[in-house]
Amino acid sequence: MKIQLLDSTLRDGAQSQNISFSVEDKINMAKALASFGIDFIEAGNPFSNPKDTEFFDAALRLDLKGAKLVPFGSTCRKGADASQDASLAALLDTSCEYVSIFGKSSAMHVEKILETTPEENLRMISDSVSFLTSKGRKVLFDAEHFFDGMKQNPDYAIATIKAAASAGAYAVVLCDTNGGAFPDFVKIATEAAKESIPDSVILGIHCHDDCGLAVANSMAAVEGGAAHIQGTFIGIGERCGNANLSTLIGNLQLKGGYSLVPQENVGKLTDMALFSAETCNVKLPGFLPYVGSGAFSHKAGMHADGVLKARESFEHINPELVGNRRSIVLSELAGRQSLIEKISHFGIKLEKNSDEATAVMARLKELERRGYVFEAAHASFELMVLRELKMFTPFFEIEDYKLIESQTGGVNSPANAMVKVKVGDRYEITADEGQGPVNAIDKAVRKALEVFYPILSKMKLVDYKVRVIDSGASTAAITRVLIESSDGGHSWTTTGASEDIISASMTALIDSIEYMLHKNNVYNYMQ
Amino acid sequence: MKIQLLDSTLRDGAQSQNISFSVEDKINMAKALASFGIDFIEAGNPFSNPKDTEFFDAALRLDLKGAKLVPFGSTCRKGADASQDASLAALLDTSCEYVSIFGKSSAMHVEKILETTPEENLRMISDSVSFLTSKGRKVLFDAEHFFDGMKQNPDYAIATIKAAASAGAYAVVLCDTNGGAFPDFVKIATEAAKESIPDSVILGIHCHDDCGLAVANSMAAVEGGAAHIQGTFIGIGERCGNANLSTLIGNLQLKGGYSLVPQENVGKLTDMALFSAETCNVKLPGFLPYVGSGAFSHKAGMHADGVLKARESFEHINPELVGNRRSIVLSELAGRQSLIEKISHFGIKLEKNSDEATAVMARLKELERRGYVFEAAHASFELMVLRELKMFTPFFEIEDYKLIESQTGGVNSPANAMVKVKVGDRYEITADEGQGPVNAIDKAVRKALEVFYPILSKMKLVDYKVRVIDSGASTAAITRVLIESSDGGHSWTTTGASEDIISASMTALIDSIEYMLHKNNVYNYMQ
Repeated sequence: MKIQLLDSTLRDGAQSQNISFSVEDKINMAKALASFGIDFIEAGNPFSNPKDTEFFDAALRLDLKGAKLVPFGSTCRKGADASQDASLAALLDTSCEYVSIFGKSSAMHVEKILETTPEENLRMISDSVSFLTSKGRKVLFDAEHFFDGMKQNPDYAIATIKAAASAGAYAVVLCDTNGGAFPDFVKIATEAAKESIPDSVILGIHCHDDCGLAVANSMAAVEGGAAHIQGTFIGIGERCGNANLSTLIGNLQLKGGYSLVPQENVGKLTDMALFSAETCNVKLPGFLPYVGSGAFSHKAGMHADGVLKARESFEHINPELVGNRRSIVLSELAGRQSLIEKISHFGIKLEKNSDEATAVMARLKELERRGYVFEAAHASFELMVLRELKMFTPFFEIEDYKLIESQTGGVNSPANAMVKVKVGDRYEITADEGQGPVNAIDKAVRKALEVFYPILSKMKLVDYKVRVIDSGASTAAITRVLIESSDGGHSWTTTGASEDIISASMTALIDSIEYMLHKNNVYNYMQ
Repeated sequence: MKIQLLDSTLRDGAQSQNISFSVEDKINMAKALASFGIDFIEAGNPFSNPKDTEFFDAALRLDLKGAKLVPFGSTCRKGADASQDASLAALLDTSCEYVSIFGKSSAMHVEKILETTPEENLRMISDSVSFLTSKGRKVLFDAEHFFDGMKQNPDYAIATIKAAASAGAYAVVLCDTNGGAFPDFVKIATEAAKESIPDSVILGIHCHDDCGLAVANSMAAVEGGAAHIQGTFIGIGERCGNANLSTLIGNLQLKGGYSLVPQENVGKLTDMALFSAETCNVKLPGFLPYVGSGAFSHKAGMHADGVLKARESFEHINPELVGNRRSIVLSELAGRQSLIEKISHFGIKLEKNSDEATAVMARLKELERRGYVFEAAHASFELMVLRELKMFTPFFEIEDYKLIESQTGGVNSPANAMVKVKVGDRYEITADEGQGPVNAIDKAVRKALEVFYPILSKMKLVDYKVRVIDSGASTAAITRVLIESSDGGHSWTTTGASEDIISASMTALIDSIEYMLHKNNVYNYMQ
């Protein structure tokens, strides 16, 4: 049975502490979710956030492979005419076929928060859904506080979703807005909802993890008749987070026999989770089900032995099924197989037991130990492989650099960088200044190299991310840098890791330049 | 109804990645768990770990307020006489009244892992329980892989727990060892177990979180008849972790009407979780139900307003009930009311329409426009308010600094920082080197200031986080820095934001030092 998924990382996820997305982040995340086969991508609130409007404009030009981008908003205000409501108009402005609006399903909230009558709330729901439907949009109606409503006044809660369904809603989504419901009740309440709306209206579920039950509640709703699950790929979201979709894909598709995403993508679950964490600029928690780095790690000697005798003794699934790997007993073969498959995408065929494969594997492990993560940095990964296989000649060398930054009498001067680059047998020495040391050296290096490789003037750095890992060591902790570059058409991502942010940034910067020159078949003066 | 709790942080928790305990840690944790009212504290495996033996010897002298310390081991080996078995002898050596042993409940595992017959496994269980009971011990029998066993060969799985019960076990604990079970099945299997053993034998449950269902499965087992739950206080444990006891206390006692710990301790749930995280040397995840720092945080303007109008709208419980508190994330959207509420925590009462409130609000908005986010940096927030209200005199000034970092011939030299600080009418000029510019200047500034404020030698930077925001501007993007500092007891977080990572780090560093001096009522030479 098919279950629809809606990922709200870019909307509900953006409500969580310390998460914020640039328009570029949102575009990358939407593309990745679409490639992974997520049906709906809830991507922002165009009425309350101007940055989201900019995103929806840009997203019009994206190829989302059939995935539907969904803007989020609310019903019209009390006493307002739906056709005159600015927030509904903002949804229409996005040109998205599917739109999501929330309305209240709890009589108590209608009275206390909206400060209006139960009848007026039903009118707002009905008019808003009708109006959007009349404009050719398919409406996902989020029944806010549905489960609290079902406890306090079930007749009214049911009336709200009936109002949405009768007005032509495409889907009715039951929301456990404050995350306080338990699975048994979710199942019973979902069954009641299912009985009260026509089968032609999709029934959905939207859970939060305030009781540690978002996954269990989503599964209970599916048992009760829901065929659409909302959550975020790695569970980030307001307060304790949203239902974790990667866990639900494991539980319901891999183990439960439902169909949530194209089957061939289940093996990429871990990569997608890592990508999601990178885009959110958080570390993927090691203990996350299925996708965490520790999800299949075995420390106890007894367990590690047991796993070797019978995998299923301490692993509920084979980690390869979700693209993860066992982490004590190095799943050498599994790791190597997927490595070889990845390398084959560059047109390089390696034998599984060749010296080359062994060398690349060893190099990868060493770099990972030093803090590198290549999942979100494909250009650096490709360069690493080419270098290890001696298939790459560097285009330049950075001989020396010096950075100076100072503040005098409380006044900050721009950072200065001097660099000396070597290209073939020629040298170029130059300098530049910038806002901070990384910007200064970035400008100086590119200025020096453009003398030899004018094509670099087309290259733009579009994103620069910094993450401190192993943060116990405070200001001397390992820093990982991700740089996304573009030549106007394509974009690529590189990485570097070091205890020194300057070194880490230099590594990523050099990779980004080398990759551009390599991919453009520029004449290499170092040959 | 009373439900017993067994905390296995010191045994199963110690199996998780990156966790290890000293004997001192174990003693502190056991004392804290006992004070909190946990019934059983599973504290180690004396047979396989000599450090655990040392702990059990030391623990004899502890006053554990009625809590039972439980050593963990396994049944005797195949073909062995229980009375001659070294691992059972190690349990007896601890002098603990209650002991825990695991045995296999899955016929498949008996065959593949133990490599013996189903009959011999039953004999091992029966003899081991009888022997320990004959020595006056109360035996908790952990039925390993019980749920897998119930799927494959239910008659045999039931036979194993009957064998333990007949041999005199105090409790039979059903273990979902690989964390692969779903709640519905756990409930049914637990009911079957309950029917097959006498009511005088306590029925327990032990779940892992490999499907994100450890809490739901524990609750399903309670519905099926279990009256004893095993887990770890904050959910740490092998792979994806164990059932989180703090979540279960919230769900079952606060919301479910069961009795797990003395009622007066529920209000200390958050403190106990923080203590547990500290002892495990991990940061308590902010998104943990009930006890996480983000569990009651509200960012969206609408939600923050809703919570102030009716607490239950976006909070499933009152955070004070578990000793946690609401944190209104201070974003531009947040209203003046929540700002004033936040400031009242420092003992400062502001009128909503006063000039002071207007000034603080304006300052907050200006800093947020420049990239500051105070939601995770309460110390910087407090200093900002005090400065704006002219209630703060700085303890020092950084007059000048200069940073130099260079690489020559491909070899990186350490970064160097020179600083000149002014304290009262005195100056101190010094320098230091470090791994990267931030580490170098951090060391130099603190070295200079310790001359005047020796108490700073107690201050440690425990965490340093960097985030690039508005990342479209690439290496000149705004960088936000968060620094967490500690004086050994308390910790506090400060922030800075700038296009220059050095400036941003300096701002956060200065705040962290000012905050420590301010809170410790150190004499201020600048007054």
